[in-house]
Amino acid sequence: MKLLIVSTSKIYGSGYMEYLLDELKEFYKDTDEILFIPYARPSGISHDEYTEYPKKAFAKIGKTVKGIHEFEDPKKALEESTGIFTGGGNSFVLLKTLYDLGLMEVLKKVIKSGTPYMGSSAGSNITGMSIGTSNDMPIAYPPSFEALQFVPFNINPHYLDPDPNSKHQGETRATRIGEFHHYNDQKVIGLREGSWLRFENNQLELKGKLDARLFAKGEEAKEYAPGDMSFLLS
Amino acid sequence: MKLLIVSTSKIYGSGYMEYLLDELKEFYKDTDEILFIPYARPSGISHDEYTEYPKKAFAKIGKTVKGIHEFEDPKKALEESTGIFTGGGNSFVLLKTLYDLGLMEVLKKVIKSGTPYMGSSAGSNITGMSIGTSNDMPIAYPPSFEALQFVPFNINPHYLDPDPNSKHQGETRATRIGEFHHYNDQKVIGLREGSWLRFENNQLELKGKLDARLFAKGEEAKEYAPGDMSFLLS
Repeated sequence: MKLLIVSTSKIYGSGYMEYLLDELKEFYKDTDEILFIPYARPSGISHDEYTEYPKKAFAKIGKTVKGIHEFEDPKKALEESTGIFTGGGNSFVLLKTLYDLGLMEVLKKVIKSGTPYMGSSAGSNITGMSIGTSNDMPIAYPPSFEALQFVPFNINPHYLDPDPNSKHQGETRATRIGEFHHYNDQKVIGLREGSWLRFENNQLELKGKLDARLFAKGEEAKEYAPGDMSFLLS
Repeated sequence: MKLLIVSTSKIYGSGYMEYLLDELKEFYKDTDEILFIPYARPSGISHDEYTEYPKKAFAKIGKTVKGIHEFEDPKKALEESTGIFTGGGNSFVLLKTLYDLGLMEVLKKVIKSGTPYMGSSAGSNITGMSIGTSNDMPIAYPPSFEALQFVPFNINPHYLDPDPNSKHQGETRATRIGEFHHYNDQKVIGLREGSWLRFENNQLELKGKLDARLFAKGEEAKEYAPGDMSFLLS
């Protein structure tokens, strides 16, 4: 498997995928055409509108992008693709659509046989064990929260540190992940905006400039600097 | 029906339920014993630990509190109760527990026949059409997102206005509710911390000092000052 598990498609003050272009150029070096999965529909925009974003971004590194919705047979599109990217938006809508269209198994098959897969935000959530650590609103009811399970842990994208000056009584992100561990066993990695994980040759690496925060059931959360994180795979 | 739909159990700088005690005294004036539903388990605390909070708060207005988990037969406890309060925490865990224990129908029955019901945060979420506008992490998978449907709209508790200075790329609350309306038709009321709705004699009133924000599909969101909101019932 070859995976990029990305916290966010945009960092503050920078365009769509701009901060990642060097990595993408190298990650997708063996393909000129990316198959985009727009099902997470951020702000509810259409599949066509959404696909314009990666089209423009990937054009800068000489690659074309087609949306999976443009194909008559999405399973065949996945099977024939040489590079896949699932964009962010709503994890519930994304997962429900993949289940409803019967695409979960074929996605697992093609990614496990080596097609490079990048997911951003909701698209990275689904690479973990479940979408149980999504930040999204449950606006659609998928038949299961079980995700693609490419990695044996869960992702929390857009990880946010508690604001010490907040007067809001809603739960912090860390409290929510603590609640998750009352009902679930898998580790959770909080990926701050600008961070991503790269999996290749059975190695897992934290990339970007920021530390990531790892939550394990019954343990204190720990910070990890960019570098090898392969211990998370066992 | 007699309902209090409360955004939060605590406002900044004040103790558990402290800001609401005058309202509670009057709302529960016909009963001395409150049945507490602790299933939402904030921070994953136990049912016993959680029940201590309302016990202490209600003692200040001369009322005793028993947790529903203390009864051998929770259905019978609901049927015999003269005042019910469901606390906040995680809406997914709360709704799953109510479904798993077969308590949804009996709750509907007793509330519709007049037992006063207060819900706070997650406990208020479940009074609406669905938990589809919860802010919580989906740490458990309920058999449905359908809620008690005492009111024909959805609640967004702890409603937060966008922070104009934020550099975070995660969706604002308003964006999330806008996404909700791509897949769902019911109106959504954003209740800020310190606001609550009171339903009685077929009238709905917004109470507290703050305005609430109403989101309707395909319309601009609107602010409403405290006062009559009965138009939401039709």
